[in-house]
Amino acid sequence: MWKPDRQSKEPIYVQIADHLERRISYGEFPPGSLLPSERKLSEQLSVNRSTVILAFAELRSMGIIESRTGSGTRVSKTIWGATPKHTPNWSRYAEGGSFLPNLPFMRRIREALTQQPSLIDFASGELSADLAPIDEITMLMSEHKYTSYLGYDNPQGYIPLRQALVSYLAKYRGIQTTESSILITSGSQQSLYLITQCLLSPGDAVAIEDPSYCYSLPMFQSAGLRLFRLPVDRHGVRPEDVRSLYKKHRIKMVFMNPNFQNPTGTVFEAERRKQLLDVASELGLPIVEDDPFSLTAYEGEPPSPIKSMDSIGSVLYIGSFSKIAASGLRIGWMVAPRTIVERLADARQQMDFGLSVIPQQVAAQFLKSSYFEPHLDRLRMQLKFKQDLLIESLRRELPDHVQFTVPQGGLHLWCKLVPEVHDGKLLEEAIRRGVVFVPGSVYGSDSGYVRFTYARAKADEIGPGIAKFAEALRELIGESNGPR
Amino acid sequence: MWKPDRQSKEPIYVQIADHLERRISYGEFPPGSLLPSERKLSEQLSVNRSTVILAFAELRSMGIIESRTGSGTRVSKTIWGATPKHTPNWSRYAEGGSFLPNLPFMRRIREALTQQPSLIDFASGELSADLAPIDEITMLMSEHKYTSYLGYDNPQGYIPLRQALVSYLAKYRGIQTTESSILITSGSQQSLYLITQCLLSPGDAVAIEDPSYCYSLPMFQSAGLRLFRLPVDRHGVRPEDVRSLYKKHRIKMVFMNPNFQNPTGTVFEAERRKQLLDVASELGLPIVEDDPFSLTAYEGEPPSPIKSMDSIGSVLYIGSFSKIAASGLRIGWMVAPRTIVERLADARQQMDFGLSVIPQQVAAQFLKSSYFEPHLDRLRMQLKFKQDLLIESLRRELPDHVQFTVPQGGLHLWCKLVPEVHDGKLLEEAIRRGVVFVPGSVYGSDSGYVRFTYARAKADEIGPGIAKFAEALRELIGESNGPR
Repeated sequence: MWKPDRQSKEPIYVQIADHLERRISYGEFPPGSLLPSERKLSEQLSVNRSTVILAFAELRSMGIIESRTGSGTRVSKTIWGATPKHTPNWSRYAEGGSFLPNLPFMRRIREALTQQPSLIDFASGELSADLAPIDEITMLMSEHKYTSYLGYDNPQGYIPLRQALVSYLAKYRGIQTTESSILITSGSQQSLYLITQCLLSPGDAVAIEDPSYCYSLPMFQSAGLRLFRLPVDRHGVRPEDVRSLYKKHRIKMVFMNPNFQNPTGTVFEAERRKQLLDVASELGLPIVEDDPFSLTAYEGEPPSPIKSMDSIGSVLYIGSFSKIAASGLRIGWMVAPRTIVERLADARQQMDFGLSVIPQQVAAQFLKSSYFEPHLDRLRMQLKFKQDLLIESLRRELPDHVQFTVPQGGLHLWCKLVPEVHDGKLLEEAIRRGVVFVPGSVYGSDSGYVRFTYARAKADEIGPGIAKFAEALRELIGESNGPR
Repeated sequence: MWKPDRQSKEPIYVQIADHLERRISYGEFPPGSLLPSERKLSEQLSVNRSTVILAFAELRSMGIIESRTGSGTRVSKTIWGATPKHTPNWSRYAEGGSFLPNLPFMRRIREALTQQPSLIDFASGELSADLAPIDEITMLMSEHKYTSYLGYDNPQGYIPLRQALVSYLAKYRGIQTTESSILITSGSQQSLYLITQCLLSPGDAVAIEDPSYCYSLPMFQSAGLRLFRLPVDRHGVRPEDVRSLYKKHRIKMVFMNPNFQNPTGTVFEAERRKQLLDVASELGLPIVEDDPFSLTAYEGEPPSPIKSMDSIGSVLYIGSFSKIAASGLRIGWMVAPRTIVERLADARQQMDFGLSVIPQQVAAQFLKSSYFEPHLDRLRMQLKFKQDLLIESLRRELPDHVQFTVPQGGLHLWCKLVPEVHDGKLLEEAIRRGVVFVPGSVYGSDSGYVRFTYARAKADEIGPGIAKFAEALRELIGESNGPR
């Protein structure tokens, strides 16, 4: 990011004006488009707002920009040559297409994290740098010669990675499969995208858990799907609810996150899994099982996937490295019947021509390496440690205001706030104090719930982060209860 | 891929029956689904067809599979437990969704290349292993410590790569831009996919070149776009055609591949570029410029992109490493106004959560390294050498039957066949003889054209490959002319 040169003899406001003029002439801000506000620019460039005001005045005097009260500062439409030229109406193009933008809360959180890198992050559902096997991956990359041909990959993904996954799935997940039943994807996200785009049609009804991270994914709405909810109690969803949704709405698919469910941390109970499979086979109904968290089980055996009990092929199984190794690898996988794998591989070729071979090679090496098991052991221990820190802090700071069940794995703690407060106000108060979380309504729940991710923050940030959150909450409770 | 163990005491047909039973029970072939044919299986497993027939008989006797004359062999629906269980009707799901499958010719080519790895490949539009900078990339990967945090990346892509591209675009392509105007994508393919999915709506009219690789991409049809064609003569498209398409059909966007166009190799003439920009600015019409080949220019300065002359921001510029370094990196980029970059970055998060950081780091290192320029020099020389070999072979083998203009860059030679023969028959004859190419109709042209890629085959395969192609062509000409 460009910053003004404070050593230069040229006044800073002139440097800024020149810089903006350059960006305008490069086409980053076409004629008629809105410039960032004075406040935003002054933050980005680390200068006083008055300096930006001077720079804008300079550009205005040259006729390059125009400001109108209340509607911001825009690039002039008139200066670009004598004959009228029309830049495409880019904002109308940006509003077109079938893709919904991300949820406002999610965009607000991303924006806050970009603008204030020092925010304590209880929002991003991923591992912190110290939990990811960065050293191991760096070592594997320098140890192994990746001399294989870097051409377009097999449409289903790099064969040695699929072979390594066959062993991994048998050993760790009790799933017997073959490399030809596996599709490598860019994380679970791409698996879900392919399923919603290529196997379902607009207007189709599907069932998701309630609450569910699926609710936070606009891809379901973008695909024109009708979402119906399966309430999650402490043992997960009730299989009979699936049957009644099928009767009422002819649901075409059920999306499940059975092990340490996101956001609630619930484990879908074993007896209910059998019942769900029975209902599915009775109705010929496909189940999509997203299983990113199970290997984080803090103690004992990780819960088995539904897929391991699926004898007739009702389940599309999705896994990923994002939550147990590194989300930046962008490696996920789907296990599915051959017709589905081939169909989705063909469609994916049209979208992005497949994944880069390099991270697939790294992932295959990592799976087969002696680093994998010790990494998992360390990960589990450290996640549990961070969870303990979070829970201690919550009990210390807000003993009467949060209720939760402690999950036995995963990255998240799902909390009910007492009394209920306004989601959006709480988020803004928290951001103002330097901490960010995900409001429960993002997952389709009522106002008054919060998801804390304890995997992303550093251990020594967790206590201070919760202290800031507690301040924000107390501020709101104070407000809504009147002054104390 | 599993193969029977010829040292084992167990008969091979029993091994095959066991293997198939295992794959069926894993859900790869759910009840009711079609098994590969006897012929295909015998090829895949390198056994006689009679051995597969015996294995099928074994499975049939166990009630696991059922064969019906003319409709192939299917997994039984009835053996899986006493109560009737229904596997989801996966083939119906596979037919759903808005995604069209790839063109039959493209699928046939891919299938042939998978089944016969020894085919001489004039079809895949990519570099051979010896043209790609594999050694350089391997060295960069072991030299540099990639210790940065492997978390979810910035939605627009890895910042150091975008910074490196700002210098690259200024130095090699005459494009002045900023890192905030760049979106890193999974090759040009993903840029095009994002544009067609997110900036256009079903029913919108767009213009593409004729012939054009765009025609081979079902993504245009999948997005519900109406395609109108701009005929390419030896100087490219005619700008006045754009205006008349706009008047008639209100086209919303023009897709251009101006430098060494795929498939014709044409360079869009300089004066026409200016006229096209004038038409675009008059109509407020966006131009998508895909520019993957220009740095392969065999002699002299590479042709400048349209974007370098675009003063008002009409052009969405797309570039990629696929054709000048390695397609397996899956690194491309788009330069676009801020509103567009942000919109597409947001949509891409929903599809795949962005690219892996690792190949982006590698690409940034490669761009900044001292390997980059020598690599380009070597690439140009070797491409020209392979082009010469192809042309010599064609002139030797088929002096009277092919016509072409020699392109000054790129990877492809576009040939007219004299006399015209049936596209599909020629392809099958060629595959039977061990060589594969892309029929011209894939790019929307009439039957009787062929695209040869000379970059993918090894130098010593080019002569023999054209000899095989000549045999196939003569066979067809002989057929259509009756016996000589």
